[in-house]
Amino acid sequence: MLRLHDYGNSGNGYKVRLLLALLGLPFTRVEYDIDRGETRTPEFLRKNPNGRIPVFELEDGRCLAESNAILVYLAEGTRFLPEERFERALVLQWLFFEQYSHEPNIATLRYWITHRLLDDDRHAQIEGKRRCGYAALDVMERHLEGRRYFIGERYTVADIALYAYTHVAGEGGFDLAQYAALRSWLGRIASEPGHVPITQL
Amino acid sequence: MLRLHDYGNSGNGYKVRLLLALLGLPFTRVEYDIDRGETRTPEFLRKNPNGRIPVFELEDGRCLAESNAILVYLAEGTRFLPEERFERALVLQWLFFEQYSHEPNIATLRYWITHRLLDDDRHAQIEGKRRCGYAALDVMERHLEGRRYFIGERYTVADIALYAYTHVAGEGGFDLAQYAALRSWLGRIASEPGHVPITQL
Repeated sequence: MLRLHDYGNSGNGYKVRLLLALLGLPFTRVEYDIDRGETRTPEFLRKNPNGRIPVFELEDGRCLAESNAILVYLAEGTRFLPEERFERALVLQWLFFEQYSHEPNIATLRYWITHRLLDDDRHAQIEGKRRCGYAALDVMERHLEGRRYFIGERYTVADIALYAYTHVAGEGGFDLAQYAALRSWLGRIASEPGHVPITQL
Repeated sequence: MLRLHDYGNSGNGYKVRLLLALLGLPFTRVEYDIDRGETRTPEFLRKNPNGRIPVFELEDGRCLAESNAILVYLAEGTRFLPEERFERALVLQWLFFEQYSHEPNIATLRYWITHRLLDDDRHAQIEGKRRCGYAALDVMERHLEGRRYFIGERYTVADIALYAYTHVAGEGGFDLAQYAALRSWLGRIASEPGHVPITQL
């Protein structure tokens, strides 16, 4: 059985859960409490030396870390990853955009706020992360104006990766009211056949 | 002619320059001064709406952003990207590690220090970025003990991406003295046939 090492309503874990559901692949979910350091044990570090969920474990025990790498691995040869070389590269472009310009701002604020982790050091970083988070949403909004999906007018893993933390951006204090194209795209993703919510663990 | 939109001794730009050199692909380099906002002009934003170098422009004018996406695009079908599905996924795993856990700490401190951009707000972030940067170097060191390259005992784009900012980590105040396996790997990469230094623009 495929195993997903995961945590609560992590958006990074959700990306993989959502794609597995869309692909109809059964898997076992193994839960870790990241606030209690359960991903920093020697046993977990053998699965991912970087000590983070999600980790995807194949039936033979080989492990793969980094949510967006797992998405591409699972999507190979399916409709969620284009065959054409430049379109595949654009999928990667948006996956790296998500991990560099989006997740560290939008997901991190959501995590700090919902887990009540706002000490003085983090309070000082809110403004910068808020500004950078909105800048990422601005980039997405401009790109989505006149488009149905991020790449090639089809649902790809780029949409899955960007959906994961955008649809819960409100939990991090982001207001999506001004983002019409983005909200329309969020609704489109949520109505895809086989869609599962982030709360369905 | 292929065009690389780039900036000075950017490590992200260097990744692409190094791979292009290793592949023997001629290209034109277009230089932008990021400190003067030259990547935030309407003209540049048409190439990359996220306003960042590097951007790789094909002969037909199509543009690709995100250094690690450009690496994978260029490496398709070459010896720098494995054919085997799981090994390819591991390359992506390390590319995402580089952009999430390594670059925002090690490259950012190098940029702030060498460009004298350390205002109060950034000074408050140094300690956290220093700690996270060393954590990333620790992960690399443990992985490289007993290995010659990051994946499959061959030189791949994962090595190129991680080399770019690791070999100049000292410019960001990181001391690599305690990282024996990592320093050995840095020497191995620098002695690869066709290697070019970050200063060869």
